[in-house]
Amino acid sequence: MTRQFIFFITLSLNFLYITFAFDPRPLQDFCVADLTSSVRFGWGRPCKDPKTVEANDFFFSGLHLAGNMSNPSGSATTTVSANQIPGLNALGVMLVRVDLRRNGFFPPHIHPRATELVTVLEGSVEFGFVTSYPAYKHLSKVVRRGDVFVVPVGLVHYARNVGEGNAVALVAFNSQNPGFTFVPDTIFGAEPAIDGDYLARAFMVDENIVEELQKKF
Amino acid sequence: MTRQFIFFITLSLNFLYITFAFDPRPLQDFCVADLTSSVRFGWGRPCKDPKTVEANDFFFSGLHLAGNMSNPSGSATTTVSANQIPGLNALGVMLVRVDLRRNGFFPPHIHPRATELVTVLEGSVEFGFVTSYPAYKHLSKVVRRGDVFVVPVGLVHYARNVGEGNAVALVAFNSQNPGFTFVPDTIFGAEPAIDGDYLARAFMVDENIVEELQKKF
Amino acid sequence: MTRQFIFFITLSLNFLYITFAFDPRPLQDFCVADLTSSVRFGWGRPCKDPKTVEANDFFFSGLHLAGNMSNPSGSATTTVSANQIPGLNALGVMLVRVDLRRNGFFPPHIHPRATELVTVLEGSVEFGFVTSYPAYKHLSKVVRRGDVFVVPVGLVHYARNVGEGNAVALVAFNSQNPGFTFVPDTIFGAEPAIDGDYLARAFMVDENIVEELQKKF
Amino acid sequence: MTRQFIFFITLSLNFLYITFAFDPRPLQDFCVADLTSSVRFGWGRPCKDPKTVEANDFFFSGLHLAGNMSNPSGSATTTVSANQIPGLNALGVMLVRVDLRRNGFFPPHIHPRATELVTVLEGSVEFGFVTSYPAYKHLSKVVRRGDVFVVPVGLVHYARNVGEGNAVALVAFNSQNPGFTFVPDTIFGAEPAIDGDYLARAFMVDENIVEELQKKF
Amino acid sequence: MTRQFIFFITLSLNFLYITFAFDPRPLQDFCVADLTSSVRFGWGRPCKDPKTVEANDFFFSGLHLAGNMSNPSGSATTTVSANQIPGLNALGVMLVRVDLRRNGFFPPHIHPRATELVTVLEGSVEFGFVTSYPAYKHLSKVVRRGDVFVVPVGLVHYARNVGEGNAVALVAFNSQNPGFTFVPDTIFGAEPAIDGDYLARAFMVDENIVEELQKKF
Amino acid sequence: MTRQFIFFITLSLNFLYITFAFDPRPLQDFCVADLTSSVRFGWGRPCKDPKTVEANDFFFSGLHLAGNMSNPSGSATTTVSANQIPGLNALGVMLVRVDLRRNGFFPPHIHPRATELVTVLEGSVEFGFVTSYPAYKHLSKVVRRGDVFVVPVGLVHYARNVGEGNAVALVAFNSQNPGFTFVPDTIFGAEPAIDGDYLARAFMVDENIVEELQKKF
Repeated sequence: MTRQFIFFITLSLNFLYITFAFDPRPLQDFCVADLTSSVRFGWGRPCKDPKTVEANDFFFSGLHLAGNMSNPSGSATTTVSANQIPGLNALGVMLVRVDLRRNGFFPPHIHPRATELVTVLEGSVEFGFVTSYPAYKHLSKVVRRGDVFVVPVGLVHYARNVGEGNAVALVAFNSQNPGFTFVPDTIFGAEPAIDGDYLARAFMVDENIVEELQKKF
Repeated sequence: MTRQFIFFITLSLNFLYITFAFDPRPLQDFCVADLTSSVRFGWGRPCKDPKTVEANDFFFSGLHLAGNMSNPSGSATTTVSANQIPGLNALGVMLVRVDLRRNGFFPPHIHPRATELVTVLEGSVEFGFVTSYPAYKHLSKVVRRGDVFVVPVGLVHYARNVGEGNAVALVAFNSQNPGFTFVPDTIFGAEPAIDGDYLARAFMVDENIVEELQKKF
Repeated sequence: MTRQFIFFITLSLNFLYITFAFDPRPLQDFCVADLTSSVRFGWGRPCKDPKTVEANDFFFSGLHLAGNMSNPSGSATTTVSANQIPGLNALGVMLVRVDLRRNGFFPPHIHPRATELVTVLEGSVEFGFVTSYPAYKHLSKVVRRGDVFVVPVGLVHYARNVGEGNAVALVAFNSQNPGFTFVPDTIFGAEPAIDGDYLARAFMVDENIVEELQKKF
Repeated sequence: MTRQFIFFITLSLNFLYITFAFDPRPLQDFCVADLTSSVRFGWGRPCKDPKTVEANDFFFSGLHLAGNMSNPSGSATTTVSANQIPGLNALGVMLVRVDLRRNGFFPPHIHPRATELVTVLEGSVEFGFVTSYPAYKHLSKVVRRGDVFVVPVGLVHYARNVGEGNAVALVAFNSQNPGFTFVPDTIFGAEPAIDGDYLARAFMVDENIVEELQKKF
Repeated sequence: MTRQFIFFITLSLNFLYITFAFDPRPLQDFCVADLTSSVRFGWGRPCKDPKTVEANDFFFSGLHLAGNMSNPSGSATTTVSANQIPGLNALGVMLVRVDLRRNGFFPPHIHPRATELVTVLEGSVEFGFVTSYPAYKHLSKVVRRGDVFVVPVGLVHYARNVGEGNAVALVAFNSQNPGFTFVPDTIFGAEPAIDGDYLARAFMVDENIVEELQKKF
Repeated sequence: MTRQFIFFITLSLNFLYITFAFDPRPLQDFCVADLTSSVRFGWGRPCKDPKTVEANDFFFSGLHLAGNMSNPSGSATTTVSANQIPGLNALGVMLVRVDLRRNGFFPPHIHPRATELVTVLEGSVEFGFVTSYPAYKHLSKVVRRGDVFVVPVGLVHYARNVGEGNAVALVAFNSQNPGFTFVPDTIFGAEPAIDGDYLARAFMVDENIVEELQKKF
């Protein structure tokens, strides 16, 4: 009985999540994520004892390396979040290196919880977003080496390589977990599928086009 | 010269916007919007002198009336925000009455700044949303009279009347300005248009389908 | 000893509460409350594994039914919070259906943590609140079917049925846990009783009136 | 016409209020209130040019002096807020010196926007508050020289001198504008009066007692 | 094996920290810290069952007593935080009594998470702070009995007794954990030592002066 | 008189500052700063009419160029904030390019309002910070091309080029206005000077060393 009891506790700890304020600032200097702990708190993580913290907890190496772009979209992302740098936990900021090979692109997507601040290190990338108010205003810009572009939180945006070679960008987000919602996959790749007749009417296309799309995603 | 000077001041006041925290709680009891003021503060509004506040500033009448559903989507919304109830300004909550005639629907959309809490007053409506983590999980439910459904902030969601008659729902948002981003219009109706070749690749369809869509929206 | 140790852990988990920011927005899409967990976090709750989340976690049925109004105040409330809809946890919004039979009423009360947005579905209800600045200004309004009324966070307010029949209202709060402080019960029904001589002086009445009141509450 | 135009602008500036987040931390080092400005922003105030700021903007003198307690409740408050110390503006904290002569008291009241932290400097004061959850639990304590007591935000509380002589306390609030809602005055002194029949039923007393109370407040 | 398992759980609980929003307001009336619990949540603490809360949880005695000033700086602090008053937990405010004997002082320091509001109860203390914008502006003031002074959050400040006798001040902070960063110790007493050549260049002094300093701290 | 009146209004508008919540998320999609407006709101700025917003409002060019490092510390910063990208206003994030020539360094400093996330693009830079709890713990790391390092908000930190050539880093801050407090200048360069005798005792050095330092800064 004792063992079952322990099992019950352990199990419930394994699925112990709690919520966080919208990217809180910590009540202490830092809260280095304890990545070995089985306890999870929503997206956040329990902290290590501050006395055991070391410089490596705040460090990551590898952003000079391109990601693997051999995929249909010709794009790659290298993420630097609290999973890679435990010391980032609860500090409300993270980073992504973006690689786009020639003609590579990111589908339209949304980060519900962060503004993104893009710096292009190499190549020429068109970034664009569509505003909600005024409705459906499309702002876009070709961003080159040394250029910076802002995508306000929550707006649909995209990126595509419009240069001759590879492109590299560094993207800073002011959230620990910005959220990534890719529009085509969300609409046509949802599981179980969203009703095809409904999508056909919403997108004003034939239902068989919707069905084809749902097969692809 | 004096006149030009005044003109300059007035003009600059007309375009005077300032930002608000994410749906702040007020630092005072309330901040009833002064709807006659030409001064604008972002989406927020300047407050009336609290001494002149009256009960009507906190009141709206008309939510028992259906909106006009004679449009392609067969839907209507009646909004109760700080524009209708000046006393709602800065209190971080608003309301929408939703009407859907038979087969009426709302296209997939996102509210970047609020969770929605739906109560169906009449009819049968399917509500669904797609999660970002786990990716592309589709949750949906037919919601009937007296049923309540939650759509978490920032997720793509939709509604469609699946009953035999009209449907009515009351939707509460925990923001003064939730934001409305309709996905099809944002993608295919953006002005100027998003590059068709790019959209064709992102949605994995022929470019002429994209062009047709862009004509429709 | 082992068993006692486990008992100690279990016990301490049973009373494990942690605090939340003032109605946080989640750091993830949602945090569906795990209602089976013995772990409590203040008023909030631990989240289920997001992979096990289903549509029913965001759903409640029964708001079309009147509550039981056979009590001295002739009122009933049906609450839709994270206890009823686990998916509401941490999203900062909840709902109450209010029923008032003829002459039914709610005593003066305060919600320290939320603005309330009332929609009357049936009948005629007088809503009123008293401002703190300017001091003691009383704003009230008879609210009928389709009317909406706002009570700003933290102000003393009341409701009473002033129509010929039953009344029904839907009340949205922009907090997961608005708090309910009924003034008469708080003052005269506190346990142990507040000193009668003091209350007599504070309310400028005879002490025996206070004592009678304290017996009733 | 020019003059009328100016008059219009000036007027509208005089009633120009804008909202603040719930006791924001400033986006800059400080925002010293410009007390000479006719422009008002809700309870907050516009800031002086930081270059003109001086030490006196952060200074107040006089908390060693007792306030005037010759009033029915035998109490006095000396407030140190952004009105007295312009540099306190937007920093989310303020102070009150409380004086209570023998038998002096404060009626039950609520601060909807701040926790209060009381330090008694002289005398013996009973402080008490009533919790909302668990409902109607009354916690009280006689607090003497060098004692500290906490009243959590939003709860009904009171203070009364239970010593032989005068009492002095220093009260810190974690808000620029905590709000003061005295219960007896709010209920029985509201203008226009709350319906007497309703109050009689809510407090379970005869209506003529309510009417007497309404005359006194 | 069972025992090891328990040991593992216990261990992981001992180092279980979670983050808090920047001095949150609670989602409930209060969250009295359970000081007996081995579970820690960053700087915050788990709450007791609200049903077991008592008046003593909100009470502290001893601020009328001077601290021990027999140390090189001739200063003492008596802290009243959630460690002393469990009921203060999560309410975003705390208190410190400061004693300074003749010539006593506090070295330049910073509170990264709170504004401080000082009331001098006895003696004459010079308080000063240096602004970051405009850069390096020094504001200072001699503060005497009954005087109040504000130090905005995050700025370098200091205090020194400039009177003939002892001085006493009460300092309120609008955070549960303001943070204390003493500049000289942080720079010259850091462990392991900061590179001396670097510090010499940064402070424009000879490296041997830096080395002497590092020995002293 | 009319002209003087206008002058008065204009003047007061020129010094019209209002406070912001701690890096608010906007209540609207964005709030592009109107850099031509004479109206100032603390560090924030009024927004342009959203209808006139264009892609250039979210764009900056020039981060591929090194700043001018011909100064005693051999360092340069190129700032990308709302002054350079008006669309960044109110979005709570900004960027700095840091250049350090051989032996170049930044003196110990603090950002009271933001965590910094550093990516080294070129060279070898030692970054270090000192924690406040545990007290005076020094964490440092040599960060090279492709490495990322985190400095938690509010902690004293430094950077120095430890490589053979120039170094370049990109620093993201999760605040619109992180604040820059350089410790040596703040302590020894404050205007008017902080009392030398006091500083000598606080830093445990001879007063003439302090005086020399004060002359240099």
